Amino acid sequence: MQTFDVVVLGAGSAGETLCGELAGAGLSVAVVEQALVGGECPYLACVPSKTLLLAAAAGADWRVAVQRRDEAAEYRDDSGATRGLEESGVTIVRGRGVVAASGRVTVDGERSVAWSRALVVATGSEPVVPPVPGLERVPTWTSDQALSSAELPARLAVLGGGAVGCELSQVYARFGSDVTLLEPGDTVLPGEPSWVGDMLCEALRGDGADVRTGTSARRVEPVPGGVRVVPDAGEPFEVDRVLIATGRRPRKAGLGLEALGLRVDEGKALDVDPRCRVRSGDGVVDGVFAMGDVTGISPYTHAANYQARIVAAQLLGAHARDADYRAIPRAVYTDPTVFSVGLSADAARQEGLEVAVAQSDVTQTGRAFIEGAAAGRPPRPARLELVADRAAGYLVGAVAVGPDADSWASELALAVHARVPLGTLVDLVHAFPTWGEAILPAVRELSGL
Amino acid sequence: MQTFDVVVLGAGSAGETLCGELAGAGLSVAVVEQALVGGECPYLACVPSKTLLLAAAAGADWRVAVQRRDEAAEYRDDSGATRGLEESGVTIVRGRGVVAASGRVTVDGERSVAWSRALVVATGSEPVVPPVPGLERVPTWTSDQALSSAELPARLAVLGGGAVGCELSQVYARFGSDVTLLEPGDTVLPGEPSWVGDMLCEALRGDGADVRTGTSARRVEPVPGGVRVVPDAGEPFEVDRVLIATGRRPRKAGLGLEALGLRVDEGKALDVDPRCRVRSGDGVVDGVFAMGDVTGISPYTHAANYQARIVAAQLLGAHARDADYRAIPRAVYTDPTVFSVGLSADAARQEGLEVAVAQSDVTQTGRAFIEGAAAGRPPRPARLELVADRAAGYLVGAVAVGPDADSWASELALAVHARVPLGTLVDLVHAFPTWGEAILPAVRELSGL
Repeated sequence: MQTFDVVVLGAGSAGETLCGELAGAGLSVAVVEQALVGGECPYLACVPSKTLLLAAAAGADWRVAVQRRDEAAEYRDDSGATRGLEESGVTIVRGRGVVAASGRVTVDGERSVAWSRALVVATGSEPVVPPVPGLERVPTWTSDQALSSAELPARLAVLGGGAVGCELSQVYARFGSDVTLLEPGDTVLPGEPSWVGDMLCEALRGDGADVRTGTSARRVEPVPGGVRVVPDAGEPFEVDRVLIATGRRPRKAGLGLEALGLRVDEGKALDVDPRCRVRSGDGVVDGVFAMGDVTGISPYTHAANYQARIVAAQLLGAHARDADYRAIPRAVYTDPTVFSVGLSADAARQEGLEVAVAQSDVTQTGRAFIEGAAAGRPPRPARLELVADRAAGYLVGAVAVGPDADSWASELALAVHARVPLGTLVDLVHAFPTWGEAILPAVRELSGL
Repeated sequence: MQTFDVVVLGAGSAGETLCGELAGAGLSVAVVEQALVGGECPYLACVPSKTLLLAAAAGADWRVAVQRRDEAAEYRDDSGATRGLEESGVTIVRGRGVVAASGRVTVDGERSVAWSRALVVATGSEPVVPPVPGLERVPTWTSDQALSSAELPARLAVLGGGAVGCELSQVYARFGSDVTLLEPGDTVLPGEPSWVGDMLCEALRGDGADVRTGTSARRVEPVPGGVRVVPDAGEPFEVDRVLIATGRRPRKAGLGLEALGLRVDEGKALDVDPRCRVRSGDGVVDGVFAMGDVTGISPYTHAANYQARIVAAQLLGAHARDADYRAIPRAVYTDPTVFSVGLSADAARQEGLEVAVAQSDVTQTGRAFIEGAAAGRPPRPARLELVADRAAGYLVGAVAVGPDADSWASELALAVHARVPLGTLVDLVHAFPTWGEAILPAVRELSGL
């Protein structure tokens, strides 16, 4: 049995980032991974889906798009990531790691690794399959299966209108599938203001998707040549395949975390304090950290990587600090793109803040006008909403929908993060003609300046 | 003679913005304009050039691109802008305004308007024609002439490698002209770090332009079928037309500013204090403001509009404040786009700051990788440089070159403007996969965190 300074369970985004940081600082590190080094993001999630979305926007055909997707995803071969970690001095242990007793992880029941300073749980999340009768008897995909298949279903049902459901609906609709999206909420992208979901619904319908809100699948059943989907409300319809995009849950069962004195509730996140130390009862478990999707805090690659930096700082004693999740951006890479950060107006009110909200019509910017004119059409739909804490005098949230919103609205994450006063924002000058010029009218409205 | 609260000389970007602000607040305003209401930007400068650049990037052909350019420029018809101002209650006086005596402006020597509270000079700038022998005998264009012509010269010489020269070189090269760009400096975009100009030179050469640095036109002469250009260094060459892009100077001669006790030096800017009040000797001229290009501070539409807001705040007594020019962005809308803000490292050192500089290779981001993969090619060149005041612990400048840099690097203007501490920037999380992820490595290098 080998002992390392740190043992990491899971070599996904967070694990890979943390291993690199720690090994770079001279610590001995082992990471246990039963699937792909690098996690799902590069092979089965963000990277292939964004490649398909960009290829679709550029008008590529499906065959070419899939080839490029697979090249981007390195054909789901993690040898590059593996080599990268090994070259930085990290020991990769392939297999399923289970915490056997304090200070030890057994891998596939055969080998053991022990940690002297810290165990870090970064096992990610797994798709939730909803309790829809018949799903086990029809052709289904989870998002990772869709993103590693070359099949272009002629007819596709998408269950769930969150970020993944919307992105993949657009991908398949643009490449020619007859897509029917079922979302139980009043609109897609639950959690964002309803006008955001409504704009995206309209865009998806413009791509040819049949977006049905306020309904979900009551049951599915095999029929000759396909699948019959019976929704709660509205007409049944037939498809060739069902894509399940109803969410994910922390992957923490069967990890032996009970050996650390932790209670493991199936599907519940691993509770951590702001330093990413695992909580137990009123305290923390000494030397045990968690980060990434398993913490259930913010299901994004960039949030996982941020938590990895927080853990690294704690373990290395350099700039050790609490994580600040107020300004973790959320992006949906559809066309139009959705970028949001911080609190929605509703969420801010629920926190008891005195809220001021202002919107800005991004199509009124010079950039929107020029971009439309250059393509010989009207400006594309685009809108911005800022949410301020009126008493504090700074932004606590923002959401932007429109072309390149993930780029130009990113500064709103900085404004929220750094608590820049509205009176300072009002003197921020944006270049003409950039999308960011849309920010000023809303800031002026909020500040009264 | 009619008396207004405020008389504005020039209805360009700054004038139009100020008139709208003041009239909206109930002041009586007259604006004197001898050319186009709206100035050059919408008809002859930014709007048509950006439309052409976007059309070129999208692969439009010249005929279509020119048609879209002209539609975007409203066929150089200012009736829309005129109507907008008039509807907001502004009196537009067409003609050449000359300050006749304190409190009065004569227009075309015929009519007079008087101001009771303020005269605002916003007469803009005019192209400088360099003293190159022979220029008067060959076909030349200034940028506004180029941007209102449908001619696509088979061979074009561009004099000057500033923003305008680079943008128009790319436009004409991409639409098929044989472009030769002459820039006397070591590289294009003087004022920015040389690596920026070098990246742009390479891009322009990739578009087929012959970019010659370290040389300028010694003389030009008509030859059968065209123009012979004899440079200071290098071989003479022949073109069909010469585009003059060697800069602009404040337009203030012949305005009668002497009547206000001001000394008018041809070509020199009108000196203003941080409230945009015109300076004379050790003081300011009571009730006389200047804004926009005529102040020589920052030759951008967005800077002019900002100054207009500063003047409006001063005249309206609401949030009256000094202008802060530290973070006015500079953008060159070529492909790759150049976005810069604040001080270059050299400029910061000249100001006596203890400077720290860090670069980041933007092609290493997930976004660059995915964007390349989706198009079936390597990432496009992209680079970022941050300049920090080491003692103060915040950014004082930044420059980014790459796709969409005007969008994603805009937050660096906020960082400079709001003096966000590096220790705060290091915890700013960017969404994966966005271009902004390139910022963190440079911030970490600067902060040591």
